[in-house]
Amino acid sequence: MTKFGEGLELLRTKLLEMSSLVEMNILRSIRAVVDQDRVAANEVIENEGRINAIELEIDALAIELLALHQPMATSLRFIVAALKINTDLERMGDLALNIAKSALALIDTPAAPAVVDIPYIAGLVQTMVRKSIDSFVAQDPDLAREVVASDDAVDELRTACYKTLTACMADDRANIKPALSLLTVVRTLERLADHATNIAEDVVFYVQGIDVRHAKSATRQM
Amino acid sequence: MTKFGEGLELLRTKLLEMSSLVEMNILRSIRAVVDQDRVAANEVIENEGRINAIELEIDALAIELLALHQPMATSLRFIVAALKINTDLERMGDLALNIAKSALALIDTPAAPAVVDIPYIAGLVQTMVRKSIDSFVAQDPDLAREVVASDDAVDELRTACYKTLTACMADDRANIKPALSLLTVVRTLERLADHATNIAEDVVFYVQGIDVRHAKSATRQM
Repeated sequence: MTKFGEGLELLRTKLLEMSSLVEMNILRSIRAVVDQDRVAANEVIENEGRINAIELEIDALAIELLALHQPMATSLRFIVAALKINTDLERMGDLALNIAKSALALIDTPAAPAVVDIPYIAGLVQTMVRKSIDSFVAQDPDLAREVVASDDAVDELRTACYKTLTACMADDRANIKPALSLLTVVRTLERLADHATNIAEDVVFYVQGIDVRHAKSATRQM
Repeated sequence: MTKFGEGLELLRTKLLEMSSLVEMNILRSIRAVVDQDRVAANEVIENEGRINAIELEIDALAIELLALHQPMATSLRFIVAALKINTDLERMGDLALNIAKSALALIDTPAAPAVVDIPYIAGLVQTMVRKSIDSFVAQDPDLAREVVASDDAVDELRTACYKTLTACMADDRANIKPALSLLTVVRTLERLADHATNIAEDVVFYVQGIDVRHAKSATRQM
């Protein structure tokens, strides 16, 4: 394998480590909310440092590969996609951190009414995150397009939750604080789904050289 | 000027056009909320298409420059920063769109109690956005660092607004809907400030080759 080939392989390996750390932190943050699990929330906070460190390593490596070699076509698109996917993964890590912090806040708050099915939404989002990463690993544009197609379902669930939680606050003012925290969690889950969509779009671009962004961006939240 | 030099200049020009479109849409979206200005909100929606189109043009040009030339050092960092700044600008455009949609929703909702000073927060955020773009144009890392330093102030204001609006919902259930819409606007403004911070960090990296990310990321929301 050429040195350039080794460099690309290292970039792929580091992105996989990054995505696996982020995915674990997302799972932990969801467990923290759903099971009121303080230990899981603290694990998210502890692992944040490694995610931030590896983000910088990936960017540095991508830039080095661009500088020392003259990548063309697929290799070039791979490196550009790696730079963009890296940014999305790091921001997903930040969102997991936010969910974990909300979870800790919710533990000290009276239980919220069980009017919205957080585990169900979390499961959908988790599947999207997992598929977006798998589509990158397997260079599978069809799988990536599935992720892009799922985004609307999550947006609709978010809108439905918003209505339910608003009604629940109006019912009893004691619900306001826990319902707002749940709303924050739902919004954050939806933003995670949006990042998974961004990654999937980058995968389609990297594998097929086709830009699928803005086919539906007007309805997308960043 | 070499062809490569001309390409870099075109990339800079296109980024400036992009940032100017995004900045105008942010200003319009804020006006739409603050002055309940339906025309401004609709202008934001109309201009979204051009922002999405130019995002794709900028990415394509950056990749072409990487493919056809072998940029080193500052030029390479400039192109990588352009790719990242482009993504942030496009997502800022999406956020302006969200604010404009909230504004339209607020016009049809009974007036919210004037408990939070949206124009003040909007002014701070607008200054951050403007400075982040100016720091890129002027290649001024000191100005960029000012933006990074301002981010905490916006985060604190967001937290304060959250408390005020929660109390206001508890006071009178008729406040719940308008207060939630205002909360969405405040959150979105805070996310705009975060993107301005991301751009400023990319400018420091591009001009000085120093990575200033993660000095304070644990408190940052994406």
